Amino acid sequence: MDAALVAARARTDRPKGDAEALARLAGPDMAEVDRLILERMQSTVPVIPLMAEHIVSAGGKRLRPLIALAAARAVGGRDLANAHRFAAAVEFIHTATLLHDDVVDSSELRRGKVAAHLIWGAPSSVLVGDFLFARAFELMVDTGQMRALGVLANASSVIAQGEVLQLTRAHDLKLDQDTYLRIIAAKTAELFAAAAEAGALAVEAPDAAVAALRSFGLNLGLAFQLADDALDYGGASEVLGKNAGDDFREGKVTLPLLVAMARTAGREDAFWRAAIDGGQRGDEEFRRARELILGTSALSVTLDMAHDYAGAAKAALCTVAPGPWRTALESLADFAVSRAA
Amino acid sequence: MDAALVAARARTDRPKGDAEALARLAGPDMAEVDRLILERMQSTVPVIPLMAEHIVSAGGKRLRPLIALAAARAVGGRDLANAHRFAAAVEFIHTATLLHDDVVDSSELRRGKVAAHLIWGAPSSVLVGDFLFARAFELMVDTGQMRALGVLANASSVIAQGEVLQLTRAHDLKLDQDTYLRIIAAKTAELFAAAAEAGALAVEAPDAAVAALRSFGLNLGLAFQLADDALDYGGASEVLGKNAGDDFREGKVTLPLLVAMARTAGREDAFWRAAIDGGQRGDEEFRRARELILGTSALSVTLDMAHDYAGAAKAALCTVAPGPWRTALESLADFAVSRAA
Repeated sequence: MDAALVAARARTDRPKGDAEALARLAGPDMAEVDRLILERMQSTVPVIPLMAEHIVSAGGKRLRPLIALAAARAVGGRDLANAHRFAAAVEFIHTATLLHDDVVDSSELRRGKVAAHLIWGAPSSVLVGDFLFARAFELMVDTGQMRALGVLANASSVIAQGEVLQLTRAHDLKLDQDTYLRIIAAKTAELFAAAAEAGALAVEAPDAAVAALRSFGLNLGLAFQLADDALDYGGASEVLGKNAGDDFREGKVTLPLLVAMARTAGREDAFWRAAIDGGQRGDEEFRRARELILGTSALSVTLDMAHDYAGAAKAALCTVAPGPWRTALESLADFAVSRAA
Repeated sequence: MDAALVAARARTDRPKGDAEALARLAGPDMAEVDRLILERMQSTVPVIPLMAEHIVSAGGKRLRPLIALAAARAVGGRDLANAHRFAAAVEFIHTATLLHDDVVDSSELRRGKVAAHLIWGAPSSVLVGDFLFARAFELMVDTGQMRALGVLANASSVIAQGEVLQLTRAHDLKLDQDTYLRIIAAKTAELFAAAAEAGALAVEAPDAAVAALRSFGLNLGLAFQLADDALDYGGASEVLGKNAGDDFREGKVTLPLLVAMARTAGREDAFWRAAIDGGQRGDEEFRRARELILGTSALSVTLDMAHDYAGAAKAALCTVAPGPWRTALESLADFAVSRAA
């Protein structure tokens, strides 16, 4: 039995979680957020709503606005008008970073559709990203809530710094685990944390509750990104997902690769160097990389770490009053990991 | 005597203006703004301060922060702590748009130095632009002044829309004057207007004064961009500036070109089509375009319009108490045009 199957069996007792529970619970709130998104992506410049619609309507899971809404509800918020605005702003910021990332990475697909820059050109992607980013701040200005706006301004600068750090350390075989975690904390987890924090602030939750929700978001974001990085090598399953191999083909050094490289040091150095540094990253090299990752249990290490962060996310909610919203957030944390297990 | 010389002679009675008067007056305030800029462009990611320094230290005229400061002083502001923050934020927003514009236009030079994307790559320019944009909002959050922050959030979305509009109408021989003015109002004048408005708001000026300063900035920005567009064809002087011809080589349809095309309709259509639409934009074509622009007085039309906007900018200040700051702003409006005359 190979290592992946052993690992998968060891994890069968872990809760599966569910993202749908939260989506169902937040349905009415999300309808209002969707309305705001549609309203605020309009412009008299015709290509702007077209491009925004292309990427927004592709949908994705709308995880970040869902987290903002759930945070507001979980701390007992009743008037969610401002939380709706922050949720829409979070989705705009996320969409802006996707448009810019696809230009930066020259990606061909986004949310299963042809990447916007391949249809409208990289210049339009850069500028429409800027537009959505500015619109996010306009939406937040309407709330009059400076502290929550400040959380997302800070998150935006942290995200950009994380992206630059990732870019300057791409193809870097000497990347260490601490720097890797710093990168995913900045480029992914920070927006989850800020979404939860802003959602709680939008309903004027007390400081302790705001801090708890922020901690939940940060740990959830780390769990989510680690699971994503594992999924790029097929996760623990035998079947590869449709986007598997993207990180490898782009030469991104993620945790599964870092662990596998460390555990095969001296033996496979030439292969890793040729792949990551030398650009030999075809289908054959991907298969070999995946074999080494499975063979060294690097995927299990990654998924165990994801599981630990999901646990920390749930633990952060212990001071939040029990109820359907807290349960849905806990279930989301389990789901973040189990989808890769 | 050729048309350019006639036009130049007709304008000799116009005031020359002076940008240095304002720079001298605002020296102490600008020192504080420079300190803020240097402090807030820092990051633990090494390439970020390097790139920011490359473009910020190249300096330019720092017109936009100067306008924010002068607006705050002209309306009687004494405590300029928040105005300094808005001035630095305005420069960050401007620098972010320059980084993105250079990627969008594939420009080779910026402020006389090699464009950042040619040194560090387009991906870094996109991401460091995002970082500076986010930092601008962090700086503004520190002021606690939501209304002024909202002015710059709105300006940012207007600028992005103007840039997209310009991009989609590049190489468009059917561009009309109204759309051209709409583009320069959005991509250039809006930030001048927002800088002046935010400066006045930062010192809590009354609404009428805020509106006057906004009107000053908008008209100054239009005058400034029209003069810039004239300068790209050498202005009214016989000697071409070092960046002359950039717009033409990029196929940008600006007012001098629009007027010359209209006035040579039926006679030179094939030339314009080959140049703007067909990409024949070498030195020889630039010389021919400039001849047609001078021969049709298209430059005079452009500079006359710039002069009118400069007049409107000065007139907008009529309700502002006379004093050295108002005088310096008036002189800046004259200078915006006279540098191209």
